[in-house]
Amino acid sequence: MAGRTEKDSLGSKEVPESAYYGVQTLRAVENFPITGVPMHAGLVIAIAQVKKAAARANMELNRLPHAIGQAIVQAADEVAQGQWADQFIVDSIQGGAGTSMNMNMNEVLANRALEIMGHRKGEYFHCNPNNHVNMSQSTNDVIPTALRVAAYSLTGRLLETMREVRSGFAAKQAEFDDVLKMGRTHLQDAVPIRMGQEFGAYGHALERDIGRIGRAREGLLSVNMGATAVGTGLNATKDYIRLVVGHLADDLGIQVRSADDLVDATQNTDAYTELSASIKVCAVNLSKICNDIRLMASGPHVGLNELNLPPRQPGSSIMPGKVNPVMAEVVNQAAFQVMGNDHTICMACEAGQFELNVMGPVIAFNLLQSLQILQRALDVFNRFALEGMEANRERCREYVERSFGIVTALNPHLGYDVAAQLVKEATATGRTVKALILERGLLTQEEMDEILDPVQMTTPGIAGERLLRDQG
Amino acid sequence: MAGRTEKDSLGSKEVPESAYYGVQTLRAVENFPITGVPMHAGLVIAIAQVKKAAARANMELNRLPHAIGQAIVQAADEVAQGQWADQFIVDSIQGGAGTSMNMNMNEVLANRALEIMGHRKGEYFHCNPNNHVNMSQSTNDVIPTALRVAAYSLTGRLLETMREVRSGFAAKQAEFDDVLKMGRTHLQDAVPIRMGQEFGAYGHALERDIGRIGRAREGLLSVNMGATAVGTGLNATKDYIRLVVGHLADDLGIQVRSADDLVDATQNTDAYTELSASIKVCAVNLSKICNDIRLMASGPHVGLNELNLPPRQPGSSIMPGKVNPVMAEVVNQAAFQVMGNDHTICMACEAGQFELNVMGPVIAFNLLQSLQILQRALDVFNRFALEGMEANRERCREYVERSFGIVTALNPHLGYDVAAQLVKEATATGRTVKALILERGLLTQEEMDEILDPVQMTTPGIAGERLLRDQG
Amino acid sequence: MAGRTEKDSLGSKEVPESAYYGVQTLRAVENFPITGVPMHAGLVIAIAQVKKAAARANMELNRLPHAIGQAIVQAADEVAQGQWADQFIVDSIQGGAGTSMNMNMNEVLANRALEIMGHRKGEYFHCNPNNHVNMSQSTNDVIPTALRVAAYSLTGRLLETMREVRSGFAAKQAEFDDVLKMGRTHLQDAVPIRMGQEFGAYGHALERDIGRIGRAREGLLSVNMGATAVGTGLNATKDYIRLVVGHLADDLGIQVRSADDLVDATQNTDAYTELSASIKVCAVNLSKICNDIRLMASGPHVGLNELNLPPRQPGSSIMPGKVNPVMAEVVNQAAFQVMGNDHTICMACEAGQFELNVMGPVIAFNLLQSLQILQRALDVFNRFALEGMEANRERCREYVERSFGIVTALNPHLGYDVAAQLVKEATATGRTVKALILERGLLTQEEMDEILDPVQMTTPGIAGERLLRDQG
Amino acid sequence: MAGRTEKDSLGSKEVPESAYYGVQTLRAVENFPITGVPMHAGLVIAIAQVKKAAARANMELNRLPHAIGQAIVQAADEVAQGQWADQFIVDSIQGGAGTSMNMNMNEVLANRALEIMGHRKGEYFHCNPNNHVNMSQSTNDVIPTALRVAAYSLTGRLLETMREVRSGFAAKQAEFDDVLKMGRTHLQDAVPIRMGQEFGAYGHALERDIGRIGRAREGLLSVNMGATAVGTGLNATKDYIRLVVGHLADDLGIQVRSADDLVDATQNTDAYTELSASIKVCAVNLSKICNDIRLMASGPHVGLNELNLPPRQPGSSIMPGKVNPVMAEVVNQAAFQVMGNDHTICMACEAGQFELNVMGPVIAFNLLQSLQILQRALDVFNRFALEGMEANRERCREYVERSFGIVTALNPHLGYDVAAQLVKEATATGRTVKALILERGLLTQEEMDEILDPVQMTTPGIAGERLLRDQG
Repeated sequence: MAGRTEKDSLGSKEVPESAYYGVQTLRAVENFPITGVPMHAGLVIAIAQVKKAAARANMELNRLPHAIGQAIVQAADEVAQGQWADQFIVDSIQGGAGTSMNMNMNEVLANRALEIMGHRKGEYFHCNPNNHVNMSQSTNDVIPTALRVAAYSLTGRLLETMREVRSGFAAKQAEFDDVLKMGRTHLQDAVPIRMGQEFGAYGHALERDIGRIGRAREGLLSVNMGATAVGTGLNATKDYIRLVVGHLADDLGIQVRSADDLVDATQNTDAYTELSASIKVCAVNLSKICNDIRLMASGPHVGLNELNLPPRQPGSSIMPGKVNPVMAEVVNQAAFQVMGNDHTICMACEAGQFELNVMGPVIAFNLLQSLQILQRALDVFNRFALEGMEANRERCREYVERSFGIVTALNPHLGYDVAAQLVKEATATGRTVKALILERGLLTQEEMDEILDPVQMTTPGIAGERLLRDQG
Repeated sequence: MAGRTEKDSLGSKEVPESAYYGVQTLRAVENFPITGVPMHAGLVIAIAQVKKAAARANMELNRLPHAIGQAIVQAADEVAQGQWADQFIVDSIQGGAGTSMNMNMNEVLANRALEIMGHRKGEYFHCNPNNHVNMSQSTNDVIPTALRVAAYSLTGRLLETMREVRSGFAAKQAEFDDVLKMGRTHLQDAVPIRMGQEFGAYGHALERDIGRIGRAREGLLSVNMGATAVGTGLNATKDYIRLVVGHLADDLGIQVRSADDLVDATQNTDAYTELSASIKVCAVNLSKICNDIRLMASGPHVGLNELNLPPRQPGSSIMPGKVNPVMAEVVNQAAFQVMGNDHTICMACEAGQFELNVMGPVIAFNLLQSLQILQRALDVFNRFALEGMEANRERCREYVERSFGIVTALNPHLGYDVAAQLVKEATATGRTVKALILERGLLTQEEMDEILDPVQMTTPGIAGERLLRDQG
Repeated sequence: MAGRTEKDSLGSKEVPESAYYGVQTLRAVENFPITGVPMHAGLVIAIAQVKKAAARANMELNRLPHAIGQAIVQAADEVAQGQWADQFIVDSIQGGAGTSMNMNMNEVLANRALEIMGHRKGEYFHCNPNNHVNMSQSTNDVIPTALRVAAYSLTGRLLETMREVRSGFAAKQAEFDDVLKMGRTHLQDAVPIRMGQEFGAYGHALERDIGRIGRAREGLLSVNMGATAVGTGLNATKDYIRLVVGHLADDLGIQVRSADDLVDATQNTDAYTELSASIKVCAVNLSKICNDIRLMASGPHVGLNELNLPPRQPGSSIMPGKVNPVMAEVVNQAAFQVMGNDHTICMACEAGQFELNVMGPVIAFNLLQSLQILQRALDVFNRFALEGMEANRERCREYVERSFGIVTALNPHLGYDVAAQLVKEATATGRTVKALILERGLLTQEEMDEILDPVQMTTPGIAGERLLRDQG
Repeated sequence: MAGRTEKDSLGSKEVPESAYYGVQTLRAVENFPITGVPMHAGLVIAIAQVKKAAARANMELNRLPHAIGQAIVQAADEVAQGQWADQFIVDSIQGGAGTSMNMNMNEVLANRALEIMGHRKGEYFHCNPNNHVNMSQSTNDVIPTALRVAAYSLTGRLLETMREVRSGFAAKQAEFDDVLKMGRTHLQDAVPIRMGQEFGAYGHALERDIGRIGRAREGLLSVNMGATAVGTGLNATKDYIRLVVGHLADDLGIQVRSADDLVDATQNTDAYTELSASIKVCAVNLSKICNDIRLMASGPHVGLNELNLPPRQPGSSIMPGKVNPVMAEVVNQAAFQVMGNDHTICMACEAGQFELNVMGPVIAFNLLQSLQILQRALDVFNRFALEGMEANRERCREYVERSFGIVTALNPHLGYDVAAQLVKEATATGRTVKALILERGLLTQEEMDEILDPVQMTTPGIAGERLLRDQG
C-alpha cells in the first residue's frame, strides 16, 4: 500500500495514504494496544467541538489565518456529525493524559482541512496539527474540557431516562395503591403495607438520585480551556479564553463557563469523582430496587410470587417454560459495573500529581461507560419490565391473612409482652391469634375487628385508638 | 455477684445488680462479640435525644403517664450529657438492624427512670423498656433517625475543620504567591508556575468539597420518626409524628423534618451513601494534595526539596536526624480508610431488602468513623503541618533556571517543531536553548528576554505578543 | 502530677512519672489522635516478641551487655504476656510507617528494663530505647516482621474457626441429605435438589477458602528482620540476622524464615494484599451463603420458610414475637467490612514508594480487624445459628409437588418445545402437566412415574433412560 | 431484506436470511443493548469447544444421531477457528446468566450444521438448537465451563508475558548492580542502596505474583459440565459427564477435570474471585513499581532524574521536546482498571442466590478484560520501556555524596543521639558531617573512611565492625 512519510521529533513513519491520522496517532496505536476499544464516540465529537471553538477564537484574534481556520472548522463540523469516525483509532486506555487522543484529532483535522483547502494530506506546512489545529491549546485543557462536555451530554440522556423510570414507578405506585400485602423486615413477616407504597418509595429514591446527578452534572460546566499546559494560560490570552469558551457554549447550547481558577481546574478531577459518585449512589439504590423486584417476582410456585414480570425471552436452554427476571438482572449488573468503575475512577483521580492528572484516559473510559450503560439498562428495564409489571393481588392478600405480623397493632392495647406470648402460642399450637384473644377474653370480637384491620395499619395511627381513649 | 433475673420472650437471664442494661442487652453482648468497639458515643447521645423527644410527645398526647415520662426524659438527658456511657456495651457490628442498640438504650433508660421514680432496677411494671421507653417507636425509625442526627453533628465538626484548612491553604496561597517554580506534568518539567497558585488550587478543591459535603449533610435532616416498623406509621399517630420531630428539632437546634415519604425513608439509605460518597470525593482530593506536599517536601538532599515541613517527631528509630512528613501521611491513611469505608457502606446499603436495610450497624460504624477520622486527621494536619510549612524559594528558582520547559513560550514565535528541535539539541550538546537561538539568529537577545520571562508565563497571555503583532 | 523530663532531637517534654512510655510516645499521641483505637493487642505482643529475639541475638554477638539484654528480655516477656497493656497508647492510624509504634515499645521496654535493673525510669544512659532496645533494628524491619507474626497468629485462629464451620456444614449436609426441595435459579423454580446438597456446596466452598487462606498465610512466614532501614541490612550482621530469626521461630514455634531478598521484603507488601484478598474471597462466599440462609429462613408465613434458625434474641422492639436471622446478618456485615478493608489495604499498599511503604499502620489496622471480626462472626454464627438449624421438611416437599420445574426431565423424551408448551398450558389453565400428558397420550402413567420421580432427578442421569433405549 | 420466521415459546420473529443466529439471539439483542461490546472472542471460542465436546459425547452414547453430531462438530470447529465471528452479537452485559450467549451459540451452530447437512437455515427439525446442539447441557454448566476455559487460556498468556517482564527486571538487576544511589523512605533521604537491588525487588515481587496467579489459575480446571440446571446432573448421565470432560481436556490439551461437587461448582464462583484477586494483588505491585519508575525518571531538570526511559512519542501537544513515561502510565491505568473490575466481580459474585449466580455475564466481561489488558499493558511496558531503560549513574552518585543518610552507619560507633546531633548541626551550618566529626575528634579520618563507605552499606553488616571489636 502506498503511503506518505511523516516526521515528528522522534523520527519518521510511513502512514497509509488514505489515512487522515498521522505519525503520532500511529505511534499511539503501536504503544497502546490495550482494551481494543477505541475512545468513546461522544468524546471524539466533543473534542471536535472544542477544536472548532478554538479555531474560531484564534481566527477572530487574527492569530489563525482565515483560510486555514475555516477549513479546520469545516473538518471539525464533519467529525462532530460522525464523519471520519473510523479515523479515531487510539485505544481508550493510553499513557499520556490524552495526548494521543488530542493528536489523533489534531492530525485528522489537519489532513481533512488540507484536503478542503486543496492540498494533499501530510502537507503540514499549510495546516499543521500542532501549530494550527492545536493553536493556543494543550492536551491538558482540550481533553478535560471535551470530557466534561461529553459527560455532560451523556448525563443529560441518563437523566431523561431516569425521569421516565421515575414516572414508571409513579404509575405503578398508583396502580398498586390498593394491593395490600405484608411488609417484610429482615425477610421476616412484619406488618401490612400496600404495594403502591413500595413503588412510591422506589420512585422517591430515584427522584433524589435525579437531583443528585443533576447537581453533580453542574460541576462539569466549569471548563479549563485556555489553561494550556499547567493552568497558567501560557500562550493563551484572556481574550482567547473568553472567546473559546463563549463559542463552545453557543455551539453546544449549554452554559459552559471558564473555571475561576484554571490551575485548579487543570489538576483537580473532583468533577469526575463527584459525578461518578452520584451515579454510584444511584446504582446502589437501583440494585436494591431490582433485588426487591426479583424477590417479589420469585416463583412462580416456590417463591414469593407477588409480582408478574412480562416475559422477554425463554429463560433457560434446558428448563422448558422458565421465564427469568432478565431486565432486573441486567440493571443489577450495570449497577455492579458502575460501582467498580467508580473505584477505578477514584484510584485514577487520587493518582494526580502536581499540575496534572495523567490518568485521564482511564477516567474517561470508565465515566462515559458508566453513564452509558446505566442509561441503557434503565431504558430497557423501563420499557420491558416496569411498564408491564403486574401485581399478583390474590397472593398478596393471602399473605396478609396468613401472617401473625398484625399483632403489632395490639401493643397499645395489650402490651408488647402479652402480644409476643400470643404469637408464641399460636405458632406452637397452630391456632390463630384471634382465637386465643377471644378465648382469654382479652378483647371482644368487635374490638378486635377494629384493632386488627390490616388496611388501616398501612397509614399512620393507632388502630383502635378510640378504645384507648375510652379506657383512659 | 448478686444480680437480678430478667425475662424476655426467649427466657430469662441473670443481670448484674449494678447494671442499668437488661436481659436483651446481655443477649446482644453474647451474640455479637465482633469488633470489640462499642457503638459510637455520638450515636448513644443521639439515641437518647430521640428517646427524650418521643417521651415528651407521648406525654403531651396523654399516652405516657407524666411521672414515667418525666423520669425517662431525665434519664435521657443524663445519657445525652455523657453519663452512664459504660452501660452501652453492645458491639458496633451486630445483627438485627440496630435492635440491640435500641434495646440497650431502652433498658438503660427504663432502669434509670425506675431509680429516679424510687423503684428498683428491673421493676419494669412501673417503667417498661418496650411499652414505655419505646412507646410509638421501632428500632426501624429510632436508629435511622439517631444515626442521621449523629452524622449531622459530626459532619458539622468536619466542615468546621475543613474551613480552617481551607483558610490555611488561602494563607499559603498568599504567602507563596511570589515563589516562582517549575510546574510539572507527568512528573516531567513543564512550564513555570507560582507555588501560591498550587496552594490556591488545593484550597479551591477543598472549597468544592465543603460545598459538596454541606449539601450531602442536608439530606440527613429528613428523618423517619413515626415510621415505626415498615414506614407506614403503625402505632404512631400523625400528631405524635409532628410532635416528636418538632421536639427533636427544638432540642438539637437543627432543622430536622419529617420525611415526605416515611416508607421510603425507612427502607432507603441513600442519605448515607450520598454523605459517604461526598466524604470520599474529598478524601480523593486530600490524598492527591498530600501526595503533592510529600513530593515537594521530599529530600532534603535527594528529593525535590521545594517545601519544608515543621518537624513533629524524630522520623526514624535507626536513621539519626531524619524527619518525615508524618502529618501528610496520616491524612493519606485516613483518606484510604474513608475510601474503604465507603465501599463497605455501599455494599451494606445495596443489601437492603424490602421495607428495611438490616445492615444499619455496619453502615453506622463506618460512616461515623469516616467523619471522625477525617476531621481529626485534617485538624492535626492543619495545626502541625500546614501552618508551619515554608517554601524553599532558592531551590524553586534554581529549578526554573535549569529547566527547558520555558521553550513552550517560543511556540507562537518559532513554531512547535523548531522549539522541539532546540530542546533536543540543547539536551544533546549540554548548551542552553538561549545560546542556540542567538547563534542561529532566530531571535535577538531583546526579543528573547521579552518572550522568555518566566514570571510572565504564570499568567494567561502570549509572552512577547507585541512581537507577533509587529510581524503581522 | 510529678513527672520526668525527657529529651529527643526535637526538644524535651514532661512525661508522667508513672509512665513507662517516653517523649516520643507523647509526641505520637499528640500528633495522631485519629481513631481513638490503640494499636491491636496482638501487634503489641508480636512487637515485644521481636524485641526479645533481637535482644537475645545481640547478647549472643556480644553487642548488647548481658545485664541490659536480660532486662530487656524480661520486660519483653512481660509485655508479651499482656502486662503493661495500658502503656501502648499510640493510635492505630499514625503517620510514619509505625515509627511511633516501635518507639512506644522501645520506650516501655527501656523503662521497664531500667526498673528491673534497679534504675529509675528515664535514666536512659543505662538502657536506651534506640541504642539498646532497638539495637540493629529499624522500624522498617521490626514493624513488618511483627505485623506478619501477629497476622499469622490471628489467621491461625480464623482457620480453626473456619474448620469448625466447615464441620458444621458437613453435619448439616448429612442431616439434610434426604430433604427434597426445589432448586432455584434466578430465584425462579428450577428442578429438584436435596437440601443436603446445598449445605454440601457451602461446605466445599468454605473448604477451598480454608485452603486459600492457609496458602496466603504461608507468605507471612518470610520476614525481613535485619533489613534495617531500606533492606540492605546496614548495621545488621549476617550472624545477627540468622540468630534473630532463629530465636523468633523457636519462641513462637512457627517456621518464620529470613526473606531471600530483604530489600524486596521491606518495600513490598503483597503478603498483606494476598492475605487480605484471600479473606475477601472467603467473605464473598460467606455473604452469598448467609444470603441463601436468610432467604431459606424467610417467613415464617410470608417467606420461603424452608429453614428454621434457633431464636437468639427478640427480633423487634415493636413487633412482638418476631425473630430475625441475626447471626447470618452479622456475618454479612463482617463480610462487607472485610471487603471494604481490603480496598483500604490495596490503596495503602499501592501507595508504597521506593524502599518502604509508609502506610503500614492503616494496613495493620485493617488487616488485623478483618481477621478478627471474620473469625468472631463465624464463631457465633456456628454456635448460635448453624448448629441448631432445622429443615422444614414438609414445606420443602410441598414446594416440589407444586412446581412445574420437573418437566425438565421430559426433554429427552418429548423435546424442549413440547415440554415448554405443556408448562404454558398448565399455567394458563391451572391444570397439572401430568394430566395434560396423559390426556394427549404423550406418555403412559407408568412411563410418567418413571420419568418424573423427583428424588432421582437429584443425581446425574436421564430419568427414564430405559425408555429411550427401548425406543432406540 | 428477505428473512425467515422463527418461533420460540414467546412467539415468532423475522430473522435475516443471511443470519446464522436465530430468534432467541434477536430477543437478546433487543433486550440488552448495554455496553455495545459483544462477548469476548475468547469466550465465543471456548463455548464452541464445549459444544463440540458435548456433541462428541452424545454421539458416543448414541443419543445424538451421527450425521447431526458430525455437522455440529464441524460447525463448532469453524467457530473455534474464528469463523462466523460476526454472528455472535449478544452484548457482554446481559440478563439471564448467559442464556443468551448459550442460545446465540446454539442457534449459530444449528444453522451452520443445517447448511453442512444440506438443509436450509431455520429447518430446526433436522438440527435443533435446544434438543441437539444443547443436548444434555444447560446454560448453567456450559457458560461456567467455557468461562473457565477462556480465562485459563488468557491467564496463560498473561503468565507468559509476566515471565518476560520478570526476566526484564532480572536483566536490569544485573545491569544496575553497581549503580550506587540513595535509598528513600517516606520520600526522604535514607541510606545507600544499589539500583540493581531495587530492580531485584521488583522482579521478586513479580515472581510471587506469577506464583499466585498460577495457583489461582489451577482453580479454573475444575469444571461443572454435566451439572446441567442446578448441579444435580439431571438429563446428564455419568458416562456423558466423563466423556464430555475427557474430550474437552484432550481437545484443549489442558487438565480440565470434573468438579468433585457439581452443585458447588454450579453455584459458587470463587474460582473467579480468586483469580481476579490474584490479578489485583499483582496490579497493586505493578502500580507501585511503575510509580517508582516514574519518580526515578522524573525530570529531567526538576525531578529526580535517576533513570532514562526510551522516548516513545512526543509527550505534549504544546510543550516541545517533552517526553513522558507513557508506558509506565499505561500500566498504572490498567492496574486501576483491574482493581475496579475486581470490585465489580466481587459484587457480582456476592449476588449469587441458591443454585446459580445469574451475574455471570458481568463477571466474564470484567475478568476477561482484566486478564487481557494487564497482559497487553505489561507487554508494551516490557518492550517499550523496561528493555531500553538506562540508569543515570552520575546523578545517582552525586545524590549519595550530597546526602546525610550515611550517618546511620555511625550508630554502632557513636550512638543514635550523637549522630542525630551531627546531622542537625551540619544542616544548620552547611558544613559536612565528616568535618564536624574530625573537628571534635570523634573518629580519625581512617576510621571514618572505613565506617562511611557507602558501597559497603548496601550489604548486611556493621560498617567498621572491626573497630568495635578492637574497642571491646
